[in-house]
Amino acid sequence: MRAGVIGAAGYTGGELLRLLLGHPRLEVVFATSGRWAGRPVAAAHPNLRKRTTLAFSPHERASAVDVLFLAAPHGAAAEAIDRWSRLADVVIDLSADFRLRSTDEYERRYRRPHPAPAWLDRFVTGLPELHRDALRGATHVAVPGCIATAAILALRPAAAAGLLQGETVVTALIGSSAAGATPGPSGHHPERSGAMRLFQPAGHRHEAEVEQACGGHVRIGGVAVEAVRGVSAVCQATPARPLSETDLWRAYRASYGAEPFVRLVSQRQGVYQLPEPKVVMGSNYCDVGFSVTGDGCRLTLLAALDNLMKGSAGNAVQCLNLVAGWDEATGLEFAGLHPV
Amino acid sequence: MRAGVIGAAGYTGGELLRLLLGHPRLEVVFATSGRWAGRPVAAAHPNLRKRTTLAFSPHERASAVDVLFLAAPHGAAAEAIDRWSRLADVVIDLSADFRLRSTDEYERRYRRPHPAPAWLDRFVTGLPELHRDALRGATHVAVPGCIATAAILALRPAAAAGLLQGETVVTALIGSSAAGATPGPSGHHPERSGAMRLFQPAGHRHEAEVEQACGGHVRIGGVAVEAVRGVSAVCQATPARPLSETDLWRAYRASYGAEPFVRLVSQRQGVYQLPEPKVVMGSNYCDVGFSVTGDGCRLTLLAALDNLMKGSAGNAVQCLNLVAGWDEATGLEFAGLHPV
Amino acid sequence: MRAGVIGAAGYTGGELLRLLLGHPRLEVVFATSGRWAGRPVAAAHPNLRKRTTLAFSPHERASAVDVLFLAAPHGAAAEAIDRWSRLADVVIDLSADFRLRSTDEYERRYRRPHPAPAWLDRFVTGLPELHRDALRGATHVAVPGCIATAAILALRPAAAAGLLQGETVVTALIGSSAAGATPGPSGHHPERSGAMRLFQPAGHRHEAEVEQACGGHVRIGGVAVEAVRGVSAVCQATPARPLSETDLWRAYRASYGAEPFVRLVSQRQGVYQLPEPKVVMGSNYCDVGFSVTGDGCRLTLLAALDNLMKGSAGNAVQCLNLVAGWDEATGLEFAGLHPV
Amino acid sequence: MRAGVIGAAGYTGGELLRLLLGHPRLEVVFATSGRWAGRPVAAAHPNLRKRTTLAFSPHERASAVDVLFLAAPHGAAAEAIDRWSRLADVVIDLSADFRLRSTDEYERRYRRPHPAPAWLDRFVTGLPELHRDALRGATHVAVPGCIATAAILALRPAAAAGLLQGETVVTALIGSSAAGATPGPSGHHPERSGAMRLFQPAGHRHEAEVEQACGGHVRIGGVAVEAVRGVSAVCQATPARPLSETDLWRAYRASYGAEPFVRLVSQRQGVYQLPEPKVVMGSNYCDVGFSVTGDGCRLTLLAALDNLMKGSAGNAVQCLNLVAGWDEATGLEFAGLHPV
Repeated sequence: MRAGVIGAAGYTGGELLRLLLGHPRLEVVFATSGRWAGRPVAAAHPNLRKRTTLAFSPHERASAVDVLFLAAPHGAAAEAIDRWSRLADVVIDLSADFRLRSTDEYERRYRRPHPAPAWLDRFVTGLPELHRDALRGATHVAVPGCIATAAILALRPAAAAGLLQGETVVTALIGSSAAGATPGPSGHHPERSGAMRLFQPAGHRHEAEVEQACGGHVRIGGVAVEAVRGVSAVCQATPARPLSETDLWRAYRASYGAEPFVRLVSQRQGVYQLPEPKVVMGSNYCDVGFSVTGDGCRLTLLAALDNLMKGSAGNAVQCLNLVAGWDEATGLEFAGLHPV
Repeated sequence: MRAGVIGAAGYTGGELLRLLLGHPRLEVVFATSGRWAGRPVAAAHPNLRKRTTLAFSPHERASAVDVLFLAAPHGAAAEAIDRWSRLADVVIDLSADFRLRSTDEYERRYRRPHPAPAWLDRFVTGLPELHRDALRGATHVAVPGCIATAAILALRPAAAAGLLQGETVVTALIGSSAAGATPGPSGHHPERSGAMRLFQPAGHRHEAEVEQACGGHVRIGGVAVEAVRGVSAVCQATPARPLSETDLWRAYRASYGAEPFVRLVSQRQGVYQLPEPKVVMGSNYCDVGFSVTGDGCRLTLLAALDNLMKGSAGNAVQCLNLVAGWDEATGLEFAGLHPV
Repeated sequence: MRAGVIGAAGYTGGELLRLLLGHPRLEVVFATSGRWAGRPVAAAHPNLRKRTTLAFSPHERASAVDVLFLAAPHGAAAEAIDRWSRLADVVIDLSADFRLRSTDEYERRYRRPHPAPAWLDRFVTGLPELHRDALRGATHVAVPGCIATAAILALRPAAAAGLLQGETVVTALIGSSAAGATPGPSGHHPERSGAMRLFQPAGHRHEAEVEQACGGHVRIGGVAVEAVRGVSAVCQATPARPLSETDLWRAYRASYGAEPFVRLVSQRQGVYQLPEPKVVMGSNYCDVGFSVTGDGCRLTLLAALDNLMKGSAGNAVQCLNLVAGWDEATGLEFAGLHPV
Repeated sequence: MRAGVIGAAGYTGGELLRLLLGHPRLEVVFATSGRWAGRPVAAAHPNLRKRTTLAFSPHERASAVDVLFLAAPHGAAAEAIDRWSRLADVVIDLSADFRLRSTDEYERRYRRPHPAPAWLDRFVTGLPELHRDALRGATHVAVPGCIATAAILALRPAAAAGLLQGETVVTALIGSSAAGATPGPSGHHPERSGAMRLFQPAGHRHEAEVEQACGGHVRIGGVAVEAVRGVSAVCQATPARPLSETDLWRAYRASYGAEPFVRLVSQRQGVYQLPEPKVVMGSNYCDVGFSVTGDGCRLTLLAALDNLMKGSAGNAVQCLNLVAGWDEATGLEFAGLHPV
């Protein structure tokens, strides 16, 4: 397959390029960037030195391909979706534009009318663990947000089994790459270094995505911490009835036992007893775990992932593998590092 | 006043020494350590080079002083409290031994009988913001835990004003120094670096301290993040009625307007809109803030402090200043650094 | 004394303000900033909340004071030096403008003619360890660069005693705050985090300052490493004759034995055997140390300091204390932290 | 091929396991550990969850394999080399035991007689860039130290072309994983965090390896900085005659133009103008670069690598690929990450 990437100089675009260049079934034919057009891809992404001689082209140069990845800022995908759809049989959008199925919810969260409401129904949510069948043969895929992906994967098995009640409080810790590649005051190293910065006390846009996937009420507080990559979703939930660890293992194994990129982590000893993003950095894994108090009345659900991998670019490639009918793990073999 | 420190080679003990050596009304006459006895204080605490020629002495050498600080591991204070009380008119304990007023609660949380229940009533909780009057003239002071101090200072004004209902979920982010000076697998740099590690999903011992101070139900999840110092308590609470920011400013200003070491931080612009530990590192400040959603129905309360300062040693000195009738800020003048 | 600060919203300016606000002999009457004019000082420097109600004023509002600190970008001090000198009896410049005594050397290093060559002779180099007598009663002080200060304090005793020969190779490790408060690509957290970035392989401007102070030939390579504050100057030197540790202790004790802010650190055991910046963070100390091979033929000299303290603002206050005839350590009492 | 790993619970052993498990031509049949015997491999290396069901076995259980990797502490390989050699046709040692060709040099550096001097000649130095032909068909391979590998790859082309004179001063910055997996005071997170710690001022053991490979005189100062992985070798050299950048490009392209894992990095713009370890983290690349002053008289040579990859485990696999006659990059495809 011939692939193109729109917005390839950003962090998500860079990870996409790395994965696509290493994917045995794909050829990258263009990578666009407004600001970097004409310069080699490796100038923006130094890890790709000696991996490609490709240079960024301007967005206007995007041409017909088999699959087109949109890694542009929020809004850019929807505004030109007609054009993108003409260029490729398969369009995979990594922005927020087509994540919500309801235009009302979109307007409420993004405070503007949806730029292309007619297209919303054509998009399948790009989360294989929930939508594998729909993704097989899909033409338009909307990859969920990184915090949403973590929270959904943490909550969904318990929610779907009716094990939860009331509001679930999610505290999402996150690394600096999630704020993008554009320098600014809050990302300046002396200010961002060592941060424990609540940047979204409540009302996070990803709440809508999580509620869309899991039902119930979810409240997300986002905290920027010292890391470049990683999302850890710490979900404090209330069980609908007292739960044992066995109940939880049963529900989570049923959901994820056969998943190639979800690992269950809930151990009683060692340093890494519960999911932690550093363990999955660079990989497409989402580690999911849980802990319940002795009386079964307080439940903590966790998920850890790399925001640029299972939280966006890696997940997008996993979706394409499903769309194209390839082995789901193709091009996503990297295991992650220890220590790191 | 002549002061002594038991357990002075640990991190809390080191901060105490730094503060006491710089305190104009105090003379440090001994600093004990089992492991470091005989070696200069600056060997364990290199920041104190050229500040003192004191050497550590063994615990047995502790002699009569005006004020004795106990910075020993949990349990050590209570087991020898008769001896410590004979040595000094004022005893200030930084361990967990005398924090809870109820022996039942102590047994439930620490899973053993209290070693010295008869002494519990003699201790005043070392939190000036709540117990200033009792601290004036107190002889025994129990300094609260670092996470508890943050959570209490975040919640108390709202709780005392009846603004909260239901359970409050506290996610406490914390630096590595809180785990102490003893090397081990989970604190080994390659493993601890970049951590987002939920080390106490629920049932944290500090919950009892917070409930003792604020009433209501509190659930604390502790997460170790990349930092050496700092506690950030992110408290997700449910208002008893819809609240405005004005309601919150009123309650928090009434409680903290005259406090020398609590600052209210809730801004709409800039990088540091809400409390963050790096801003108070090395200082005795606790920054407290809040955020409420537009509908007034979801409330986030925050506090940030340095676990070794307002979270233990700095707070202990503030208590002594009250006990002794000195200006409350004596020896605690350092403002903190920016950037850091 | 009444003091003013030009360029007070930058990192050096912020540290100056912190020190001046805490200095018992000074009153800060204005703090200028182009970009932040009209906003409270604590908006730029959140550590100063509750410490001052001062707001930034525009540069034009600078008025007559007893001492004026110039913390503006390089070039700004020299271009308006006539004006600054009319405003104050004592002018202390923290920029590079008046550090070099030779206009030729200035032109060679800064690649432009000096904007105010006639003023060069009036400035005393603001390094108390070398120029204490000249600083007493000086009217114009030029504070050296942070890397230069570290390298000079590391090398000077050996150089002055004739113990060195040939070129000395200095590798200076440095934190991100030294690059200033303006966001940009190389300081963006995801790019700067974890850096080991040689930003100046040779030909560093501070070489001229070091050679001016120590003679000989010096080569400085600057490496940006993961830290916000700190300079570590690792100086690989060649002894003029085989040296013993005793020779070195003798030379360094003779130079620094009475210095209030230089500490000699050269130990055979423990974690902190040689100078390290984290130990002095926030303090005005420069820790200086050395190591010599068993055959006496390879010598390593080290200095560690906080680039915003002994490397600029702290050193500036130490100079003022000398100029004004106060105790040299006034306002510089903070010991630094451990751990940090 | 069937492979076994001795000492597989350490950091080098863990990286070896990750690479061997992902290598299409290898089957891992055992992984030994004294301390972890009986526990799953993923308990020590959480990145390998779901990648293997292998458990650690005791060293005594090592059995016959085609290739045996020795990742044990220094000394352990040499002391049992007879046994290891009986177990496998190919032995690849990652320790320091067989790196030096001269027993005299070994005794001088390691201060003890070599435990198995008769074996020294059988070992080929495991650096494909210098010993590719000898590695093809070799039976015993000694992988160089991580700092040595970086310094050799930085210096060798210039040294071999006769472009250097006098002593070269190497300052090697290094992450915490290089000190191994055993907790201790200097690696305890609060102490190691933010370090700029000269741990080996001169006389580093790797000096002998570099001189063995490059000739000339080399002086290495090792500095521990804030990072888990990475070595940056900053080599300050003196040219034998004034050099231009063109001279250097010519020499380095001639040496490395066809190398699969060496990339030349010397750019005039952008954030990553020279080699930096974060760019190669997790990959087997060594980025090599240089900078020369305008007068051609001061030369800086640099190399950056991941100490656990090209600095040990990755390099070991590259050597095996040569020994076995496979494509040299087999199993080493990971490109590294950006940002990270």
